[in-house]
Amino acid sequence: MSTKPSKTLETFPNPEPKRDYTIRMRIPEFTCLCPKTGQPDFATMHLEYIPDKTCVELKSLKLYMWSFREEGAFHEAVTNKILEDLAKATKPRFMRLTAEWYVRGGIYTTVVAEHAAKGFKPKPKIELP
Amino acid sequence: MSTKPSKTLETFPNPEPKRDYTIRMRIPEFTCLCPKTGQPDFATMHLEYIPDKTCVELKSLKLYMWSFREEGAFHEAVTNKILEDLAKATKPRFMRLTAEWYVRGGIYTTVVAEHAAKGFKPKPKIELP
Amino acid sequence: MSTKPSKTLETFPNPEPKRDYTIRMRIPEFTCLCPKTGQPDFATMHLEYIPDKTCVELKSLKLYMWSFREEGAFHEAVTNKILEDLAKATKPRFMRLTAEWYVRGGIYTTVVAEHAAKGFKPKPKIELP
Amino acid sequence: MSTKPSKTLETFPNPEPKRDYTIRMRIPEFTCLCPKTGQPDFATMHLEYIPDKTCVELKSLKLYMWSFREEGAFHEAVTNKILEDLAKATKPRFMRLTAEWYVRGGIYTTVVAEHAAKGFKPKPKIELP
Amino acid sequence: MSTKPSKTLETFPNPEPKRDYTIRMRIPEFTCLCPKTGQPDFATMHLEYIPDKTCVELKSLKLYMWSFREEGAFHEAVTNKILEDLAKATKPRFMRLTAEWYVRGGIYTTVVAEHAAKGFKPKPKIELP
Amino acid sequence: MSTKPSKTLETFPNPEPKRDYTIRMRIPEFTCLCPKTGQPDFATMHLEYIPDKTCVELKSLKLYMWSFREEGAFHEAVTNKILEDLAKATKPRFMRLTAEWYVRGGIYTTVVAEHAAKGFKPKPKIELP
Amino acid sequence: MSTKPSKTLETFPNPEPKRDYTIRMRIPEFTCLCPKTGQPDFATMHLEYIPDKTCVELKSLKLYMWSFREEGAFHEAVTNKILEDLAKATKPRFMRLTAEWYVRGGIYTTVVAEHAAKGFKPKPKIELP
Amino acid sequence: MSTKPSKTLETFPNPEPKRDYTIRMRIPEFTCLCPKTGQPDFATMHLEYIPDKTCVELKSLKLYMWSFREEGAFHEAVTNKILEDLAKATKPRFMRLTAEWYVRGGIYTTVVAEHAAKGFKPKPKIELP
Amino acid sequence: MSTKPSKTLETFPNPEPKRDYTIRMRIPEFTCLCPKTGQPDFATMHLEYIPDKTCVELKSLKLYMWSFREEGAFHEAVTNKILEDLAKATKPRFMRLTAEWYVRGGIYTTVVAEHAAKGFKPKPKIELP
Amino acid sequence: MSTKPSKTLETFPNPEPKRDYTIRMRIPEFTCLCPKTGQPDFATMHLEYIPDKTCVELKSLKLYMWSFREEGAFHEAVTNKILEDLAKATKPRFMRLTAEWYVRGGIYTTVVAEHAAKGFKPKPKIELP
Ligand SMILES: [Ca+2]
Ligand SMILES: [Ca+2]
Ligand SMILES: [Ca+2]
Ligand SMILES: [Ca+2]
Ligand SMILES: [Ca+2]
Ligand SMILES: [Ca+2]
Ligand SMILES: [Ca+2]
Ligand SMILES: [Ca+2]
Ligand SMILES: [Ca+2]
Ligand SMILES: [Ca+2]
Ligand SMILES: [Ca+2]
Ligand SMILES: [Ca+2]
Ligand SMILES: [Ca+2]
Ligand SMILES: [Ca+2]
Ligand SMILES: [Ca+2]
Ligand SMILES: [Ca+2]
Repeated sequence: MSTKPSKTLETFPNPEPKRDYTIRMRIPEFTCLCPKTGQPDFATMHLEYIPDKTCVELKSLKLYMWSFREEGAFHEAVTNKILEDLAKATKPRFMRLTAEWYVRGGIYTTVVAEHAAKGFKPKPKIELP
Repeated sequence: MSTKPSKTLETFPNPEPKRDYTIRMRIPEFTCLCPKTGQPDFATMHLEYIPDKTCVELKSLKLYMWSFREEGAFHEAVTNKILEDLAKATKPRFMRLTAEWYVRGGIYTTVVAEHAAKGFKPKPKIELP
Repeated sequence: MSTKPSKTLETFPNPEPKRDYTIRMRIPEFTCLCPKTGQPDFATMHLEYIPDKTCVELKSLKLYMWSFREEGAFHEAVTNKILEDLAKATKPRFMRLTAEWYVRGGIYTTVVAEHAAKGFKPKPKIELP
Repeated sequence: MSTKPSKTLETFPNPEPKRDYTIRMRIPEFTCLCPKTGQPDFATMHLEYIPDKTCVELKSLKLYMWSFREEGAFHEAVTNKILEDLAKATKPRFMRLTAEWYVRGGIYTTVVAEHAAKGFKPKPKIELP
Repeated sequence: MSTKPSKTLETFPNPEPKRDYTIRMRIPEFTCLCPKTGQPDFATMHLEYIPDKTCVELKSLKLYMWSFREEGAFHEAVTNKILEDLAKATKPRFMRLTAEWYVRGGIYTTVVAEHAAKGFKPKPKIELP
Repeated sequence: MSTKPSKTLETFPNPEPKRDYTIRMRIPEFTCLCPKTGQPDFATMHLEYIPDKTCVELKSLKLYMWSFREEGAFHEAVTNKILEDLAKATKPRFMRLTAEWYVRGGIYTTVVAEHAAKGFKPKPKIELP
Repeated sequence: MSTKPSKTLETFPNPEPKRDYTIRMRIPEFTCLCPKTGQPDFATMHLEYIPDKTCVELKSLKLYMWSFREEGAFHEAVTNKILEDLAKATKPRFMRLTAEWYVRGGIYTTVVAEHAAKGFKPKPKIELP
Repeated sequence: MSTKPSKTLETFPNPEPKRDYTIRMRIPEFTCLCPKTGQPDFATMHLEYIPDKTCVELKSLKLYMWSFREEGAFHEAVTNKILEDLAKATKPRFMRLTAEWYVRGGIYTTVVAEHAAKGFKPKPKIELP
Repeated sequence: MSTKPSKTLETFPNPEPKRDYTIRMRIPEFTCLCPKTGQPDFATMHLEYIPDKTCVELKSLKLYMWSFREEGAFHEAVTNKILEDLAKATKPRFMRLTAEWYVRGGIYTTVVAEHAAKGFKPKPKIELP
Repeated sequence: MSTKPSKTLETFPNPEPKRDYTIRMRIPEFTCLCPKTGQPDFATMHLEYIPDKTCVELKSLKLYMWSFREEGAFHEAVTNKILEDLAKATKPRFMRLTAEWYVRGGIYTTVVAEHAAKGFKPKPKIELP
């Protein structure tokens, strides 16, 4: 795997496909450009998903996030786009992406998008007391 | 768009209307006047919504919040009024506004109001363990 | 309105009676007397309610809380009593009072009481992801 | 009431038996002995319950907790035992005891046990937005 | 019991098998090796379970965690493996393991896996107000 | 000692008069009346001192603080007055009183006053790295 | 005293002029206008001072802060100006004003200015261990 | 070394006597008895010292702290006593003991005592920016 | 002023040159490239200075920080370089730059560099109690 | 540079030797073995230093810390040893190492050691208000 920004998301086989379990990844190093002003935007990305057959490979995820560095991107659109790329690459049972953008104009924006596989039926979370 | 306070809320097309997703905006710079005493009141506004066809434009939201600077406004009434203005401008699937007012008379008041589109059926939040 | 402790809770008309919305009030300045020892007790009161036709007026709420300053009051009983007074004065759709008492005998006590109007059917809270 | 450790839990009549309400008591001063090594163990106890006909008296609760000071007690067993003693003394509609034990062997253990009266049907918590 | 790393998980009889109750153990001292680079990985493990006939013995749990010190282990696989070992040893009614891994490549990963006994029907958590 | 508010501050002999050492007491339960409006004021008092021949007795300190409950008192004046009473009663080598008053008019006020015995020469605090 | 914004800072006689002591006031409700764009700016003001003959009156301080609501003011200049006004009105032995401005352009600015009376010799703070 | 409470503090040779360095030990598990009421008292002990020829052995420190479990002890006296025992056993260049006692009568007390070897000259702490 | 990254730091005249006062700026949006791997690095910059004749203009500071986006830069070197550029542009009496870099290789690095004008004599900070 | 544990600490030339500046490195992934029991010990290491001619290279620092994984080491001795190795390799003007060890026997130990070059004269830290 090269060490360049890349839109290719590599995966590896889910080591425990028979079980629904959760993978969470917090990625505090995301930056792209504002399409209106060309100025840099920054965000912390929070990914959580239930893998099906594959998991996203950590280093390739880093290079993928890097690939937005020179691209113009609106907050709402790019959050949905990244979710779609990640869902397409890993075909998870369920996936959620939370993009926590740095303040602009005195306003702090967060965008949260989800993807569910066809027929995915969420089980209620078991809350122990 | 001018840089003056304005009641006009501008919008842009939702880039992902086929998906229910969440937009959150924290706005710590709200001030209006107390209708009884004429003295300034302050609040932090928290907006969260599921957009339908349009999203609220960030700069116009800032100018809209500014427009209350010279107006008298009761805590409960103005929270509901702002929610209505925002709901009318963006016609969201669901919207919630939380106004966290600064302390008055030793008492800390928060008002939370919600709007749902006709026929909106909330999906239960998927809580991953 | 006088500036003396008073059991009278004044109200004003709910500006948005057609909508269920929440009002929260945190009141850190409550004190009464322990009926056993006569010594002062202290608490922070947390009120939250869905108003129906009326809302409790902030200054009168402050004078009402003041009215317990010279009264003996057990933790459990007075929390229920205040809830009842507030519910009687405002006839809310739903109301909850949380009394967080200061430590006594090394033990930190909190009492939480609720009142619901006849026929009140709570809607499930919409949790956005 | 004497000021000695005591297994007797005194109670007083619930001042508001017609309403389900919550009493929480945080007790940071619990210590007993490890049955294996004889060394002291420490915990913070968190009690929460819906009283029925009686409430536990605060000072007697303190003396009861004191009564474990010289006793050997395993984490899991003693948490269940204290819950049972408290439930037997107060016959609550519902009761939960959380014992947060201090670290042992680099591991932080917490044990949570619950008791419900026969026929107790928990109402869903009303979550205001 | 020797003081060496060991895959053997010892148990003791659940002192209160007739009741569903929760045991939580936070274990901040886990380390293994990265199978790709051979470099050390670190995690904090959070175990929570409802015991059935047996509970896991604390010291043996510590030695078991130690046993991964010289082993190569992928984040996702080893979290599932440890859960399985613990479930096999204690046959709990329900068990959840959360592995909070230290940052790698600027990304913070957490893996959460659960095991339920056959026929286990989770009771909804009773949330007191 | 009676259980009534009292201006009498009782003391006990300093058990270690040959050493300069520090006693700190945080007292979150102070209330008096505003001399202008008659309304209750609240504060958290922080006392720290180097005792000389006597230390202030805890229960008598509590009754002393209680004695302000029915008195009118300006923030600045009463903080200095309490310091003086405490210094007069205990004749410390050094004493500081910090009164953290609850918010009034949207402004949070704190007053800090100090007393030093004649000839008291403060030693620089030894700061270990 | 009227309830209008006012540049007049009222004072009252220092009740303890023979002692150097500290008064701190946190004022979270400051707003003015940006001279370049005309848009509102917000800040939290922190005032701390050693009074000499007079103290600033709380309500008049609030009206004074209000008086900047319609004025254009640069961060650095207005912080120094407010300090000067306060120092002129109260002639303190020492005074410090910290203005913590809300974020602009992704940058969080704080300005801190001090005034000392002629001949003021600061005593080193006595740090108890 | 036995596993019983013991007043004997064991030491080991300081491995680096030529250098002034700091050892800090936080001990959250201290309990003794109140000499007036016989009831248990609790504290967290914070020890920090510059060793000279010897360091205090961790397990023996634990047994020493345990030895107060059945003893009556006033806050101020016992803090000074423990400091003296520790100083006598280890003869440090400098030592400080901070005893943070649990709340009594609504008042939170902390006692801090220090010991310096004869001729000890504290070096100013080097504060890097 | 253009909206492009720029090495030019613009300034404005210090409005209060006769007084030593502090300006602090927190800049959480800094990114450059690692000279070894070409991968993005991120940091939060903290600037604090005592201006002399000029202050750094906020927007130009933002464009200056942006100018490192495409440049390779070692942590230690670039922190010193930015300090020098800022000192050269504003000729402050004193300036400090703290660069808090995001984690690399499991290690969190911070670099702090200072510049003082010739003949600058720091006054000791006045610490009010 | 290999990717194996190594006692060799590599350095690179200080890019700014004419200035005293600070480098801080937080290293949460340290583990060694207890010489008495053979069981793993864990610590977070905090390094801060003023470099002279060389700085420690980050990756080699990581491999160095790894080199203790299989070694027995007492808390006090190994903290001093690591400081010495680092000081020998980099010959800093000043260096401090803080080792924050995980809890053992209910006691949380931290060890702090410092090294100064011959003739190093610390400058007082400039504290801006
Ligand atoms: Ca957020
Ligand atoms: Ca705020
Ligand atoms: Ca709130
Ligand atoms: Ca509180
Ligand atoms: Ca509580
Ligand atoms: Ca504690
Ligand atoms: Ca816990
Ligand atoms: Ca996490
Ligand atoms: Ca407070
Ligand atoms: Ca304060
Ligand atoms: Ca700040
Ligand atoms: Ca304390
Ligand atoms: Ca951050
Ligand atoms: Ca840092
Ligand atoms: Ca940690
Ligand atoms: Ca520590």
